Amino acid sequence: MKDTYSIGIDFGTESGRAVLVRVRDGKEIASAIYEYSNGVIDSRLPVEEEVPLGTDWALQDPSDYLKTCYEAIPRVLEDSQVNPENIIGLGIDFTSCTMLPVDEEGSPLCWKENFKTNPHAWVKLWKHHAAQPQATKLNEIARERGEDFLQRYGGKISSEWLIPKIWQIAEEAPEIYDAADKFMEAADWVIMQLTGVEKRNISVTGYKAIWSRATGYPDREFFAALDPRMEDLVEDKLSEEIYNLGEKAGNLTPKMAEKLKLPRSVAVAVANVDSFVSVPAVTVSEPGKMVMVMGTSICHMVLDRERHFVEGMTGCIEDGILPGFYGYEAGQSAVGDIFAWFVDNCVPEEYQAEAHNQGISIHELLEKKAARLKPGESGLLALDWWNGNRSILVDADLTGLILGMTLNTSPEEIYRALIEATAFGTKKIISAFENSGVEIEELYACGGLPYKNKMLMQIYADVTGKPIKIAASEQTPALGSAMHGAVAAGKDRGGYPDIFSASENMAGLKEEEYLPAEEASSIYTKLYQEYERLHDYFGRGENDVMKRLKKIKRQYE
Amino acid sequence: MKDTYSIGIDFGTESGRAVLVRVRDGKEIASAIYEYSNGVIDSRLPVEEEVPLGTDWALQDPSDYLKTCYEAIPRVLEDSQVNPENIIGLGIDFTSCTMLPVDEEGSPLCWKENFKTNPHAWVKLWKHHAAQPQATKLNEIARERGEDFLQRYGGKISSEWLIPKIWQIAEEAPEIYDAADKFMEAADWVIMQLTGVEKRNISVTGYKAIWSRATGYPDREFFAALDPRMEDLVEDKLSEEIYNLGEKAGNLTPKMAEKLKLPRSVAVAVANVDSFVSVPAVTVSEPGKMVMVMGTSICHMVLDRERHFVEGMTGCIEDGILPGFYGYEAGQSAVGDIFAWFVDNCVPEEYQAEAHNQGISIHELLEKKAARLKPGESGLLALDWWNGNRSILVDADLTGLILGMTLNTSPEEIYRALIEATAFGTKKIISAFENSGVEIEELYACGGLPYKNKMLMQIYADVTGKPIKIAASEQTPALGSAMHGAVAAGKDRGGYPDIFSASENMAGLKEEEYLPAEEASSIYTKLYQEYERLHDYFGRGENDVMKRLKKIKRQYE
Repeated sequence: MKDTYSIGIDFGTESGRAVLVRVRDGKEIASAIYEYSNGVIDSRLPVEEEVPLGTDWALQDPSDYLKTCYEAIPRVLEDSQVNPENIIGLGIDFTSCTMLPVDEEGSPLCWKENFKTNPHAWVKLWKHHAAQPQATKLNEIARERGEDFLQRYGGKISSEWLIPKIWQIAEEAPEIYDAADKFMEAADWVIMQLTGVEKRNISVTGYKAIWSRATGYPDREFFAALDPRMEDLVEDKLSEEIYNLGEKAGNLTPKMAEKLKLPRSVAVAVANVDSFVSVPAVTVSEPGKMVMVMGTSICHMVLDRERHFVEGMTGCIEDGILPGFYGYEAGQSAVGDIFAWFVDNCVPEEYQAEAHNQGISIHELLEKKAARLKPGESGLLALDWWNGNRSILVDADLTGLILGMTLNTSPEEIYRALIEATAFGTKKIISAFENSGVEIEELYACGGLPYKNKMLMQIYADVTGKPIKIAASEQTPALGSAMHGAVAAGKDRGGYPDIFSASENMAGLKEEEYLPAEEASSIYTKLYQEYERLHDYFGRGENDVMKRLKKIKRQYE
Repeated sequence: MKDTYSIGIDFGTESGRAVLVRVRDGKEIASAIYEYSNGVIDSRLPVEEEVPLGTDWALQDPSDYLKTCYEAIPRVLEDSQVNPENIIGLGIDFTSCTMLPVDEEGSPLCWKENFKTNPHAWVKLWKHHAAQPQATKLNEIARERGEDFLQRYGGKISSEWLIPKIWQIAEEAPEIYDAADKFMEAADWVIMQLTGVEKRNISVTGYKAIWSRATGYPDREFFAALDPRMEDLVEDKLSEEIYNLGEKAGNLTPKMAEKLKLPRSVAVAVANVDSFVSVPAVTVSEPGKMVMVMGTSICHMVLDRERHFVEGMTGCIEDGILPGFYGYEAGQSAVGDIFAWFVDNCVPEEYQAEAHNQGISIHELLEKKAARLKPGESGLLALDWWNGNRSILVDADLTGLILGMTLNTSPEEIYRALIEATAFGTKKIISAFENSGVEIEELYACGGLPYKNKMLMQIYADVTGKPIKIAASEQTPALGSAMHGAVAAGKDRGGYPDIFSASENMAGLKEEEYLPAEEASSIYTKLYQEYERLHDYFGRGENDVMKRLKKIKRQYE
């Protein structure tokens, strides 16, 4: 039987990446990246007029998603030299909750002349945190009303999610709220562009839109309690038809098939979330294993047969990651982003020159220098809250902290302390799972960081005291999407009957594994105690200085 | 009557500076700087052998002090074209406690072949903090024994002072302790080199060697309780003959007169401390006015007719600053040093390039950018403990902290937060004085910072809520030393009968004055409350994380 192929597209924060893989064994035949022309929009809109954005805003341009398809898919076809007729499936995954308002035709409101200078007409990226006031009020109201759904989300709805983002639009730009025919996850919007049909997926809806298979969305009274305008939100501007992962959304529209140079027969899977799609792509399909997608942020995913209440997880959704399991998600809202911030803002000229002379990146130079340090040698300790704390505190108003500086503190010491802080953050999440009866024995890593920074991975192993295995594919989410594409195509067309058989055949691990070193682990145990104490002091209301400072800061916005 | 002149030399941390001034009005005729060839020795000894130094060590080379005299004095003579016969006085001031062990001839032990590779044979600079274990034990023993002297020093003896530094030598290098004929302040040692006589001054002895006019040094039993070897310390290796400020120590030795190209008749005043000598040089000779010498660190001085117990002041000595007053000293152990650390370690390449393009220093660029920010706009807050906390906590084991960082935090925001933190530190000191009944109505500033950074001065005014006046002379300590030289020469030789008349005639203020701005002050009042809370939490034992981290760090030394 001739080989079949599937394409996966991973829509990230800065770029989109397409991979073309062989269905038989998951081998990557070709890949292509498209860097979003407007990237993350966080200071001003990409329009002629000067439209500045407030603190905590993060937008995107939906055109960048289409351009990713138009540029990257033809490129992988050309590079691979695969006959397009042998491409049987296409899957996509996305950052989430990344959402936008669209009109009756599904056209983004930011494309309209009369709305393009209104920031609320644009895509709100996952890390848009300006809906924190709405999230805070939503949580208060939900607690007052005794809404059961809070339990499914670790006790708090994040400002990153759909309902707070929609509410921010309703409050700050009622004209956009009214003009929006629908609010959609960008993931589902792209699927609609590809297939012409609206098929919202269970992952984004379950994890980010307060929906569950058993109970649906919150009721009308709840939405009315938030804002009378939002009473009919679900009926008017969302949808209650929710589709399972691996289901086929449809075939390509004629126009899209032409643009992408693919046959119309390609089966397009319903969309997925970048982190969840990675779970089967790192071979994980059972409990006891935590998958970490490590990049600008970290998403942590665990499967379990039962529902437990775990503090500060961002969601626990039946069938949300793999069918037949409760899928738990937790997250750290900034990890690689913190190191990037450090490199952009805190590394002196002479280090830049040294990296240049050695022909290595500044991250590599810092890793080299920091790797010479022992745990605890710098005397530094940090709280990794540069972008708030998603798990386990679910509080976007928390901010970063570093202490222990002396006049001899070096940049590499700070860099290492920031890495350690993110590892402590992960350990805190693991502890929350374990304290709630969800066992975690091994860690599985994918995303950009595990391949870039060995020191970081060793620190994570030492801090958590757990072995870490690494996905064989560096394009794990895209591979996972291609796997879902192969499932959408189905066995008869040369794909797979379900995601488990796809995972078994298409996913793999690197031979190299990170094991915790005893001596380092024992020092990190002490440092982690200090981290925990500061975590609780600043994060659990004992001293809300970070929030009070943010309040003062907001007076200037 | 023909004009007379006096020379003052200010021995700083990195360099020594001589000024030649006209006695009639204090006008600066010439000045010259000598940068110490071995600067601050904090990583390895300046000898052929590789002798690394531990964390918190800070040494100097005594040869640098003599070179300062040999190079800077002939230079001011030449530049000024003043007839050396009209030079009537010479005064010096020094960092303190900066101390060294010397032999019977007064020769530093580090000059000896058999001791030069022993770090304990070198000058221990004021900011050598490696005697913290000794200081901690000393304070415990003093408390147990109910030693009255603790009260004079805010309740704690600092690791920077003479007895902990000597004790560190006794414990870690008994051979140096035994070989030392005397332990001397570098200030008194330089006077001994100039005049051939040992005349220890009341300032360094009172403030740094636990001596007072009324009670002398602590008794033999106390020293024996520290360490049996030290029972005879005072009799054997110190001196009980203490001389008042403005007294004449002697005339120049023939050899010195020749080297310096000065007549032997020049009256050399007993040495002084850099900060104290500045008080009359900024016109202050009465209570209610706090003098701040603002440079790498800040020294705060206040005069009062009575003795009060003020928390965390570093000393309260009768006649210690000006005759007839109790002189109070408090201090912040790092101020400019923190900004220098920041510039060296945390400013990105593009800022360096921007400063270069604008033809300004990186400090100036940061000031320019930071001046555009409003109080509280960054959401940042810092604890200014990069070099421990001298006042009011007297604890060298405390370390720096900064919180409030987000992914949008910029270098200038951090820079400004560091400046604000040092201003909060000053306010904390002012509050300690005021809470103990020592009123402070105005601030008087000298040192390097007030002339370099207007934004910083305005922040200090806004944070403290007090007006700040600035010394007319940018070489305030050197001017103060020259004033003491003129007093040592006496009225008959064309000088002054006392420091008060010298101050009246020779000192002055700039016209420009910094007044607190109401709006900024009111925001800073809120931020200061947050600072105070963190100050107490981390500084008063509620969470000793900084000390525990230092302990772990010390395991690697």
